[in-house]
Amino acid sequence: MGKYINQTRFLIAVDCIVFGFDRSHLKILLIKRGLEPEIGKWSLMGGFVQKEESADEAANRILKVLTGLNGVYLEQLHSFSQPDRDPIERTISVAYFALIDILQYEKQITEQYHAEWFLLSEMPTLIFDHNQMVQMAKEKLRYKATIHPILFELLPDRFTLPLIQSLFENVFETRFDKGNFSRKLVSTGMLIRQPEKNMEGSKKGAHYYTLDLKSYKKNFHEVQRFVPNQNSLT
Amino acid sequence: MGKYINQTRFLIAVDCIVFGFDRSHLKILLIKRGLEPEIGKWSLMGGFVQKEESADEAANRILKVLTGLNGVYLEQLHSFSQPDRDPIERTISVAYFALIDILQYEKQITEQYHAEWFLLSEMPTLIFDHNQMVQMAKEKLRYKATIHPILFELLPDRFTLPLIQSLFENVFETRFDKGNFSRKLVSTGMLIRQPEKNMEGSKKGAHYYTLDLKSYKKNFHEVQRFVPNQNSLT
Repeated sequence: MGKYINQTRFLIAVDCIVFGFDRSHLKILLIKRGLEPEIGKWSLMGGFVQKEESADEAANRILKVLTGLNGVYLEQLHSFSQPDRDPIERTISVAYFALIDILQYEKQITEQYHAEWFLLSEMPTLIFDHNQMVQMAKEKLRYKATIHPILFELLPDRFTLPLIQSLFENVFETRFDKGNFSRKLVSTGMLIRQPEKNMEGSKKGAHYYTLDLKSYKKNFHEVQRFVPNQNSLT
Repeated sequence: MGKYINQTRFLIAVDCIVFGFDRSHLKILLIKRGLEPEIGKWSLMGGFVQKEESADEAANRILKVLTGLNGVYLEQLHSFSQPDRDPIERTISVAYFALIDILQYEKQITEQYHAEWFLLSEMPTLIFDHNQMVQMAKEKLRYKATIHPILFELLPDRFTLPLIQSLFENVFETRFDKGNFSRKLVSTGMLIRQPEKNMEGSKKGAHYYTLDLKSYKKNFHEVQRFVPNQNSLT
């Protein structure tokens, strides 16, 4: 088989922005970089695409190796290709973002690898263009959250209204009036109330809800009525 | 400066899905491929990323060389990296989509290169995974059109209500009731009525409108009330 001649070839990496929700804060999973340059600095999880794998496969492989996780929500975000983004050698990075319910996985992640969950609002400066990747991932998450039930990937299968409000407040970095938020959300018809209650937060308790995925897809524009306008809509 | 060792390097290409609207149909710009393999077959416009340029720069360069166009709406879509997608040599392609008001550019495009506008509904089978790229671009266009004034890139600066209805019908592959569509669109407050009329379509004429971008961004959820639910919301 021939080859294309007179063309430059490049390293391809994948980098994963891993978001998690610990039932009160939105967090990001970072690792201490184990190789030069910038050894010991905080970084997204990443690695090089291998000869026989697609970028999707590489991202799944790296996420699995580094966290022990299978089947998490993983979506291609954007490819970053500034010629000088890696000082050692030009590398094009395909960035992915992943969403995790932290409480299900926290233990196995932090024991086996030098990975650590940071509050998204307090994360350190990352190597290369990784901060830019995180910024884009945050915008994409907000953008998609208004038309897609993506945030429910961060929640357990059943959840209370205060929990979902806390998640939305974290993602959109704002506060919602409790009565208003609950009323609007329930009135969309996209949640199914369960008979059981969570009694931890108050004496009266809070009903559990589950997501009606079909109704969410039909009524996603309702969600936009109570989230702030997105700056990413440029 | 060092290099990363024991890693495979790959060709990186960009491919551009160029959509246009000729005031009655949505079209796509294709070229006859000039090199093996698949010489003479229809293809998206593309080319290899060069040593000192980013993928964005490569896409702009290729679009400019092949069409003479500067400053068109160009957005990164997705990177395609299946190992066997190019039978000659493994190539990762970063796909972009571009939006053009055909009537402004048709002449210079079709004279200088072997490029041709096809009705989107009647486009030929393309090489490699290009049909998959086009399918994803169509879905992205619909998806974005509901929350972003992106479709106005395909229209002249001032337009009539029948023209914008025709564009929406093309993009969403559906028919809208004329009275309903016009009434809902105008009631969003995102269009500014101009005193002039276009007298071509009817005796009474049709007022020209321009887009109120600020209002569009504030009221984009209104648009979703009159477009069909998107299959891409998976």
